[in-house]
Amino acid sequence: MFADLIANVAMSTSAVGSAIDGKARLVVLPELVTSGYAFETAAEAEAVAITAHHPVFASWAEQAARNDAVVVGGFCELGDDGIYNSAAVVDASGVRAVYRKTHLWDREKLWFRAGSALPPVVDTAIGRIGVAICYDVEFPELTRHLGLAGADIVAVPTNWPFHERPVGERPAEVVLAMAAARVNRMAIACCDRSGTERGQHWTEGTTIIGSDGWPCAVAGISAPANDPADFAVATADLDLTAGRRKRFTGLADLFADRRTDLYGP
Amino acid sequence: MFADLIANVAMSTSAVGSAIDGKARLVVLPELVTSGYAFETAAEAEAVAITAHHPVFASWAEQAARNDAVVVGGFCELGDDGIYNSAAVVDASGVRAVYRKTHLWDREKLWFRAGSALPPVVDTAIGRIGVAICYDVEFPELTRHLGLAGADIVAVPTNWPFHERPVGERPAEVVLAMAAARVNRMAIACCDRSGTERGQHWTEGTTIIGSDGWPCAVAGISAPANDPADFAVATADLDLTAGRRKRFTGLADLFADRRTDLYGP
Repeated sequence: MFADLIANVAMSTSAVGSAIDGKARLVVLPELVTSGYAFETAAEAEAVAITAHHPVFASWAEQAARNDAVVVGGFCELGDDGIYNSAAVVDASGVRAVYRKTHLWDREKLWFRAGSALPPVVDTAIGRIGVAICYDVEFPELTRHLGLAGADIVAVPTNWPFHERPVGERPAEVVLAMAAARVNRMAIACCDRSGTERGQHWTEGTTIIGSDGWPCAVAGISAPANDPADFAVATADLDLTAGRRKRFTGLADLFADRRTDLYGP
Repeated sequence: MFADLIANVAMSTSAVGSAIDGKARLVVLPELVTSGYAFETAAEAEAVAITAHHPVFASWAEQAARNDAVVVGGFCELGDDGIYNSAAVVDASGVRAVYRKTHLWDREKLWFRAGSALPPVVDTAIGRIGVAICYDVEFPELTRHLGLAGADIVAVPTNWPFHERPVGERPAEVVLAMAAARVNRMAIACCDRSGTERGQHWTEGTTIIGSDGWPCAVAGISAPANDPADFAVATADLDLTAGRRKRFTGLADLFADRRTDLYGP
């Protein structure tokens, strides 16, 4: 719910708990899940900004610990020098990494600072988990970085604003994620928002993509009532080691075939 | 037809002529259209290798001149130091550029040398035309190069070997081309082979994609008879200047938003 930190802590922890009850090992939550997205001023964002020490992460960790799982979710981060659109990687031990979005979308630039480092790939009990946030996925340089850094899967908290698209087409952002998955042979799990917020209708594009580039699960679409708690969930069983072999024919290798002599590493 | 240079010169020139009769301004032919693809030895490829001075290009140019058009097609190139999987950009004035494929697919490495330069973007009467060949499109570094170099459209001669895909899905290679178009806001026209050659079944994925990333024309599928002359054609009317503006919201700009400080130019 927009700008309702207490409600969002409860709702996100409940969602993680439900996923863990369902035996999830990796749970991805939306971008800015603790705060909402549709800020109109920096002051509004600052009012719900939290640090990585906020108890919400301990709550997620507590749920994760029940299944040795990993949770990746977005939050509005209070930094020493401003606020960031960030994502935390949390496991039973607590916050393993925080990534600050490096490609700020449109008006986000008015209240967020951009991160100064490319996203991490975190070694976890279930595999190597990379992180990207929303608009980041539209930059193949960033997803390539994650592939080369060894990501088995990229967790993508996102808030995709709805745009019209041709009938029968997937959201364009999902097409980009499919391409990023395929050219890097890594799975990608995008968790989008649902419903509307301050008049902003979301794409509801939650999709899990295998390391072969094909979607293997999509979430349903929320009911028109638009209750913020009426969210849909996508689940899939993936072998996270499936994409580690980049050679896929006798002589073709998606990484070794890169012409780094022509375009750099 | 495989290894039949004389027949392929006639057939490709006829195809260009038909397209020009139909008022085409840009005609894209398949990869290795003069030679066929399914070589088994270097000697087979050498036997049908030609230079950029071969009369086939004058024939294409003669057809192009009738409508101030541009033709891009693949050929097996005899170079000073070996043979290349190349594409020529031809207009009324003749051969404007030759690009030697930089990402060789699988067994191509056994007979072709790889090009030593990224593909050109050629200023023509109809706009700025970039070139890529087949597997090149699986490397976002190459398509990004073409976007940054100012391509309005990328002509992609290709020979996509058929692979099984999930029911209802486009060929994976088309998904990659759609993503490359969208993140660079440039159109892409892929011309695939049809039928089979030495048992190799082709994807028949010929598709024209707009600078918004959505396909606007696909070719039909050839008849089962597999007559090499039974090829299908995709045609579309595109505004080649449509993608030049990379800013697509008030504050989002697909090129200016790149974090070159983090991943280089």
